[in-house]
Amino acid sequence: MADQEPLTRIIEEIVAPGAAEVDRTGGFPRKAVDALADEGLLALTVPAAHGGTGQGPRAAADVVRRISTACGSTAMVVTMHYSAVAALAVADRADVLREIATGRHLSTLAFSEAGSRSHFWAPLGTATAEGDEVRLDAHKSWVTSAGQADSYVWSSRPLSAPGPMSLWLVRPGGPGLTVGAEFDGLGLRGNDSRPVTADGLRVPATALLGPDGAGLDLALGAVLPWFLLLNAAASVGLMEAVTRETTAHLSRTRLRHLDRSLAQQPEARATLARMRIETDRTAALVDTALTALEQGREDAQLLVLEVKAAADGSAAEVADLAMTACGGAAFRKELGIERRFRDSRAARVMAPTTTALLDFVGRALCGLPLLDGADA
Amino acid sequence: MADQEPLTRIIEEIVAPGAAEVDRTGGFPRKAVDALADEGLLALTVPAAHGGTGQGPRAAADVVRRISTACGSTAMVVTMHYSAVAALAVADRADVLREIATGRHLSTLAFSEAGSRSHFWAPLGTATAEGDEVRLDAHKSWVTSAGQADSYVWSSRPLSAPGPMSLWLVRPGGPGLTVGAEFDGLGLRGNDSRPVTADGLRVPATALLGPDGAGLDLALGAVLPWFLLLNAAASVGLMEAVTRETTAHLSRTRLRHLDRSLAQQPEARATLARMRIETDRTAALVDTALTALEQGREDAQLLVLEVKAAADGSAAEVADLAMTACGGAAFRKELGIERRFRDSRAARVMAPTTTALLDFVGRALCGLPLLDGADA
Amino acid sequence: MADQEPLTRIIEEIVAPGAAEVDRTGGFPRKAVDALADEGLLALTVPAAHGGTGQGPRAAADVVRRISTACGSTAMVVTMHYSAVAALAVADRADVLREIATGRHLSTLAFSEAGSRSHFWAPLGTATAEGDEVRLDAHKSWVTSAGQADSYVWSSRPLSAPGPMSLWLVRPGGPGLTVGAEFDGLGLRGNDSRPVTADGLRVPATALLGPDGAGLDLALGAVLPWFLLLNAAASVGLMEAVTRETTAHLSRTRLRHLDRSLAQQPEARATLARMRIETDRTAALVDTALTALEQGREDAQLLVLEVKAAADGSAAEVADLAMTACGGAAFRKELGIERRFRDSRAARVMAPTTTALLDFVGRALCGLPLLDGADA
Amino acid sequence: MADQEPLTRIIEEIVAPGAAEVDRTGGFPRKAVDALADEGLLALTVPAAHGGTGQGPRAAADVVRRISTACGSTAMVVTMHYSAVAALAVADRADVLREIATGRHLSTLAFSEAGSRSHFWAPLGTATAEGDEVRLDAHKSWVTSAGQADSYVWSSRPLSAPGPMSLWLVRPGGPGLTVGAEFDGLGLRGNDSRPVTADGLRVPATALLGPDGAGLDLALGAVLPWFLLLNAAASVGLMEAVTRETTAHLSRTRLRHLDRSLAQQPEARATLARMRIETDRTAALVDTALTALEQGREDAQLLVLEVKAAADGSAAEVADLAMTACGGAAFRKELGIERRFRDSRAARVMAPTTTALLDFVGRALCGLPLLDGADA
Repeated sequence: MADQEPLTRIIEEIVAPGAAEVDRTGGFPRKAVDALADEGLLALTVPAAHGGTGQGPRAAADVVRRISTACGSTAMVVTMHYSAVAALAVADRADVLREIATGRHLSTLAFSEAGSRSHFWAPLGTATAEGDEVRLDAHKSWVTSAGQADSYVWSSRPLSAPGPMSLWLVRPGGPGLTVGAEFDGLGLRGNDSRPVTADGLRVPATALLGPDGAGLDLALGAVLPWFLLLNAAASVGLMEAVTRETTAHLSRTRLRHLDRSLAQQPEARATLARMRIETDRTAALVDTALTALEQGREDAQLLVLEVKAAADGSAAEVADLAMTACGGAAFRKELGIERRFRDSRAARVMAPTTTALLDFVGRALCGLPLLDGADA
Repeated sequence: MADQEPLTRIIEEIVAPGAAEVDRTGGFPRKAVDALADEGLLALTVPAAHGGTGQGPRAAADVVRRISTACGSTAMVVTMHYSAVAALAVADRADVLREIATGRHLSTLAFSEAGSRSHFWAPLGTATAEGDEVRLDAHKSWVTSAGQADSYVWSSRPLSAPGPMSLWLVRPGGPGLTVGAEFDGLGLRGNDSRPVTADGLRVPATALLGPDGAGLDLALGAVLPWFLLLNAAASVGLMEAVTRETTAHLSRTRLRHLDRSLAQQPEARATLARMRIETDRTAALVDTALTALEQGREDAQLLVLEVKAAADGSAAEVADLAMTACGGAAFRKELGIERRFRDSRAARVMAPTTTALLDFVGRALCGLPLLDGADA
Repeated sequence: MADQEPLTRIIEEIVAPGAAEVDRTGGFPRKAVDALADEGLLALTVPAAHGGTGQGPRAAADVVRRISTACGSTAMVVTMHYSAVAALAVADRADVLREIATGRHLSTLAFSEAGSRSHFWAPLGTATAEGDEVRLDAHKSWVTSAGQADSYVWSSRPLSAPGPMSLWLVRPGGPGLTVGAEFDGLGLRGNDSRPVTADGLRVPATALLGPDGAGLDLALGAVLPWFLLLNAAASVGLMEAVTRETTAHLSRTRLRHLDRSLAQQPEARATLARMRIETDRTAALVDTALTALEQGREDAQLLVLEVKAAADGSAAEVADLAMTACGGAAFRKELGIERRFRDSRAARVMAPTTTALLDFVGRALCGLPLLDGADA
Repeated sequence: MADQEPLTRIIEEIVAPGAAEVDRTGGFPRKAVDALADEGLLALTVPAAHGGTGQGPRAAADVVRRISTACGSTAMVVTMHYSAVAALAVADRADVLREIATGRHLSTLAFSEAGSRSHFWAPLGTATAEGDEVRLDAHKSWVTSAGQADSYVWSSRPLSAPGPMSLWLVRPGGPGLTVGAEFDGLGLRGNDSRPVTADGLRVPATALLGPDGAGLDLALGAVLPWFLLLNAAASVGLMEAVTRETTAHLSRTRLRHLDRSLAQQPEARATLARMRIETDRTAALVDTALTALEQGREDAQLLVLEVKAAADGSAAEVADLAMTACGGAAFRKELGIERRFRDSRAARVMAPTTTALLDFVGRALCGLPLLDGADA
């Protein structure tokens, strides 16, 4: 596990105090991301061979979970960065990895598209060879850190190979790439999630990550486990935060006419207990999946497919319980619970959605392929 | 039922177009309230003897439900107004009723307090005789239309009679009455819900509504049925709106890679079906309760106690299902679903809360008193 | 509504006292069915032109609901009978209707098959013209009253017309028809639900109900509304019974060390309240659907498709809540709650299943056909 | 972990083949218990100093979970035995422990009473000194293995010390002890759960376990963790079994008209996925609690209080999902799913009930005592 002292400091001094403002304005948590970069936390999962810390999913999940106890937007930015690094590492992309290792580079994924929506496994965007270069055209619908990242791991249809997908390293800034309007939505308001359009964007042929046409294997094999585990870890952090805050609220708030605290009302206690049990069950599942992955256990893939679906629903439920347990007080901004409640609704619809993951898990259990012709 | 043409026009021309702005800024829907007043809709439930339309809960529920399909904040303002009118009518308060009948007066309830929170049946605020006047002191925690209403129906401990409560007609504006900071919260952002403090407020002795000490009977017998039914009607309107919008979104949105609409995905259809069934079951219960009340049926009280608890949970669930059925699109402001989702969380914590109502229903079923000494 | 005095007597003197025994032994409630026949209740929905009482779905639903408060198996036998009568009435099958009107005939449906399971709209069984007769072959998987009915309304593929289905009137007893082993299952143990196999069964050509190939229209248009409404009514009866019994148990059972009844425990009361609210919401929806049907309202079809899906889930939930509210006592046979709990699980899997109905409702909302080529 | 080969053999050769019969007849699984005794599995947790295997909760949980995949009744008998052994070990009861170590002794708990029901912390039964002996009087309401156990760990009010409870070692067979009628209930039908009445039962003064008046500390500190963990492990075994059987059923059952298996229906797969996720989350929580206990972690007590509440609800939900996923087939006895469904309802109402445990967890979180004066 990474040295956590700097992280504790960053969370306490930068992430937590800034979270309400990031949510209110929808501003990107640049100060937090810079601090994480300075302390080497963006390099956490870069292979040591490329100058990084070489940590695996457990360390990354721990970082994301802890950030998420304070700010969901920052946690999502970091989740996407580590997920992108996973693709770059497998594709052995030394140039970018070295930049990331030095803390000068934030990356992200650019998968979902306007046409195929959350079905990220079926990009409609194209890649066309034009001389030494490749032309990319696509309507990406949701890109985290869209206007802030130093690179995107970008999906398209293959250049010429069979198969559903190729992946590219795309650097923003050039002609042909447009970052859309700022996001103004329910939750995770500060992760700069926006549409990105490529219209005749030119990238060098070397931007290809892995073989042409092998992008889906890379996405499912290298990126997906990281993304699912970190997403689940972020949900666990959110649940820990609202459960802690609810405990504090119930303990300190008094019903003056009864001369007792809200914690002395059995219904409130039962709700709190449900919140904690849900939190602990999901945290335990994430831990089990990490262990299975580390030990190369046979059930590792299944458990990894399970964690985000489990955590999505759990976080939505726990945040909703917090809203009822704390009553009208949670409706106001001060407790921070309504912010986490809004944030909690994002994970379920982020691709792969809960619906898609339940289908993947069901297919894995029944020995069917994760995707079949009709859906792809 | 009231002549609904003016209402249709007001909803289509004022309430619906203004709803997003009311939500964004937290501004009071003054224009809509004025239009409702002009068309006699604030006088809808004022007894004919006092110049009103003399309608009962069914007509009022219909108005609230229809407004709520467009704007939850406006629906709540009207709900509180009709609830206050119910108290004034039973107390035969000719002066104010006549003002309301002419459309120059918006009223509201001022029940919940900082000390006893959602236990509205146990006010801590006091009423003290001072010469010809009465001095009121209280910390009201949530008053709808706080800075906009022309009167509050106000609860306190009795002057001198035994019993838990007296009710007063309080007009804002004088010394001793302070309206607190604007509300900045999750949902129902435009109903001007704020704390109101009385610190040495003087009201004439004639401000007393009904006998001293009989306020709880008035609150439970006259106000509560209206409040519960109208609150439930508002939730039904919200559910109708999100179900309609979800149907439209699923039907018009296409998965281009599959050349089919979202409505052609079985999971989305099943979610939509659940939403509609929940909506229709709750609407049917409200209708049944209204009929029972109109027919003086024995089960009327029980059904009235049930409707808000049923509708609170239903609306929360239906709005949540809409958030998943519409995916990332619902996360953005455009569809209006995320606004309704935020609004949907208010009813459960508004006194009497779902928890309190379940207890009332359980007590009624078991032949126990609604409140007992230990709780009051 | 039918004269209910005889029904009250039958329920109190025969159905209720026999319910536990019917459940224990899996015996058919013959005595109750005979008594219902004697009092004209099997003729309730036979058109007056054919000597019946000529009542509609509301009266039938009332009979089924009331029987179901005492015995789910008997209620299911009657549900299937009325559903079969609906087909016979539309097909204007005077001969059988007249028998039913005199109380000498119990009918039922024989739809679901081993091959297509709950997809009753896709029979695999065949009808083959052989001279003046028709040969039927099929493996019917679940036929209520299988060994007791005087006729089956039987689905098959058409003789020669296009379309998915033809319906037949089949009388048991002849060669080629085999009634399978007695049912030994979780719940509804006394409705004699068994497989029925036709292997070279000969029926006269006149056994055809309606035109060849038009069976699905008849099934969906004439039979389905009755079946769905009566099934929902049976679930409402079940819910009423367990809610009443739970109320009684909580009120009469004491915690001696606390000197109070279970009804004085807030958690138990809240559970009871949820049970009653669920019951009342579903009853209200059934009532609304009946009214819509009677008034020929535009939303009638949708509401009818909703009622069974709503009631299936509701009954399962309410019975489960009863099992927790009454604790260990409900685990024993005496209270009758565990029997209703077992019975409550049947409706969800009885075709059309909850899953199928949610799809139908979703399709109706989105303007899609109830069934499409790929599924049929 | 114990040598598991003998256990595998016992489960495959005795427990699994006998489970349906044990359920049908309500007969005690004597053959299985004898086989477990012969292989030393009843001695698994007896301290090595007394001739046992000296294993801790993890090994015991593993045994219970595996037995429970085949037969819930047998798993409950073993759970109660290990829980009783935990009390005897802390009370250092060499005589009985040595008997257990040799495999000649099955023990159990006798806590819940007719008067205080599931509130096991408040026995009404008494202990009265009579010369050298002690007289016990009580109405125990549910004693597992009631007519089969060689001893009961028995709770009563103290002899003379202050405090709520004393514990005793009671051997059956003598005058004054009556084992009530055989259990005929919904599930766990073969664990011989019956009422046991003591009416002037004489036990030697040495039957006291621990100090007089300290029984609740013993029950909460020594017995409860084992009972909760093993109960949760039994629920995990049940969930594993129904999930496996559902997977098999969906994979092997075909919709002939569509030429595809049930596993190829998305709704069925999603249900199966939910079942597996629930199972894995609960299994992970149990594992985490065991680890926390073994490592003496600060959160161990809280996690132990959580596991049964989590597993109770989980098992009820997973078994219910299996009933819908497998449709009518699960309603019949053959699949074994309806048996597990019935069994699954027991845990929630077994003391400490889910309601009690949620209260304990909520109290622990808020820093309140587990029980307070008003409840005890």
